[in-house]
Amino acid sequence: MVMKVHGAVISTATMRVFAALYEKDLESEFVPVVLRADGHKKKHFLTLNPFGQVPAFEDGDSKLFGNYSVHCSCTRGTPLVCEGKPMATVGVWMEVEAHQFDPLAVKLQRELVYNPRFGMATDAAVVEENETKLAKVLDVYEARLSQSKYLGCDCFTLADLHHLPALTNLLGTPLRKLFDARPKVSAWAADIMARPAWAKVLAMRNQQ
Amino acid sequence: MVMKVHGAVISTATMRVFAALYEKDLESEFVPVVLRADGHKKKHFLTLNPFGQVPAFEDGDSKLFGNYSVHCSCTRGTPLVCEGKPMATVGVWMEVEAHQFDPLAVKLQRELVYNPRFGMATDAAVVEENETKLAKVLDVYEARLSQSKYLGCDCFTLADLHHLPALTNLLGTPLRKLFDARPKVSAWAADIMARPAWAKVLAMRNQQ
Ligand SMILES: N[C@@H](CCC(=O)N[C@@H](CS)C(=O)NCC(=O)O)C(=O)O
Ligand SMILES: N[C@@H](CCC(=O)N[C@@H](CS)C(=O)NCC(=O)O)C(=O)O
Repeated sequence: MVMKVHGAVISTATMRVFAALYEKDLESEFVPVVLRADGHKKKHFLTLNPFGQVPAFEDGDSKLFGNYSVHCSCTRGTPLVCEGKPMATVGVWMEVEAHQFDPLAVKLQRELVYNPRFGMATDAAVVEENETKLAKVLDVYEARLSQSKYLGCDCFTLADLHHLPALTNLLGTPLRKLFDARPKVSAWAADIMARPAWAKVLAMRNQQ
Repeated sequence: MVMKVHGAVISTATMRVFAALYEKDLESEFVPVVLRADGHKKKHFLTLNPFGQVPAFEDGDSKLFGNYSVHCSCTRGTPLVCEGKPMATVGVWMEVEAHQFDPLAVKLQRELVYNPRFGMATDAAVVEENETKLAKVLDVYEARLSQSKYLGCDCFTLADLHHLPALTNLLGTPLRKLFDARPKVSAWAADIMARPAWAKVLAMRNQQ
């Protein structure tokens, strides 16, 4: 029985999980949740994830939710960890994504991608504040990527992968300039966005 | 050579790391960083953690920071994972701590613990808003702990451990009532706070 992924292709958290599943070459069944109809706040969904957020998973008897659910240690597909190195090397940069990059990226995507798409106004002050903070985070990335090909180590890992949905969204906005101004960061972004597994996720998103 | 931990005992993130080190029975050297003197924003510290947050680690040649650094898979001490089960089971609840519990706990500790300690005012509106949200998160914990002895599985793991610093702080405030009102949650809190490794962390904090 394959794992069921309850989610929405518009959700960055869902896209991230599919990127990992495609990298790992794991089959799954996609069960669309209609966010605009509050599908993630309905009783059935809350039995899968009591916090009412997509994605949520059913894998045999286990009900899981969140990013972690696909951190499998299976040997199929791309390793996604730094082989032969302690998990901490990747973990540190996964935490950087979660604590430093993602909170800013979430706000900037709301203002510059989702609000315009749904006919809502962009708050310029929120953009400015978070743009300044993002520039500082990207300076740290530029330094890191001058020492190491990818964030965790010299191979592509979950720490890089977790950036894909937000990177793809932000590079389609005027904030592209923050990336273009940093040669290591922009080469890294181009490299990871060119992965075949990510192309499959984008194809899946565009189909919906 | 033992790992050096640069941190501050007043910092919940530092206490969390020492709880894990004591559970794992790993030796370490504590290097105090004086937050009030902005020690975490000084040049030397920024070479350890470019984001200027405690704790940061030096382990031989590697410089690490954040929670992840002690997620060792070594066999010493308490396993801290659900043995024989996929890492996802613990990971899901670590993510719940990081994304649902911690953001509320950080704000509530600032208002109810740190502000009073440093002679600053408590913002009652912030307390009220986050107290309501925390009550809902604790309802989910109450349900989870009715099915499972600890959050991740039937043994104590990192998912439980990560709550210790904030739990200890919040139980010393009027918000104790939120815990007392939930029998499973309060039994769990009492159980994990009684661990000898946690007593060592509190002793270390009280020494400073
Ligand atoms: N840390 C979670 C975050 C999930 C998340 O934020 N999901 C968003 C969509 S990208 C959601 O469901 N938002 C609706 C809500 O929070 O009510 C994960 O990575 O799975
Ligand atoms: N996710 C990090 C968070 C570290 C963190 O928030 N540290 C706080 C003290 S508890 C800090 O250094 N704050 C100072 C600052 O952010 O400038 C971890 O768990 O290590």
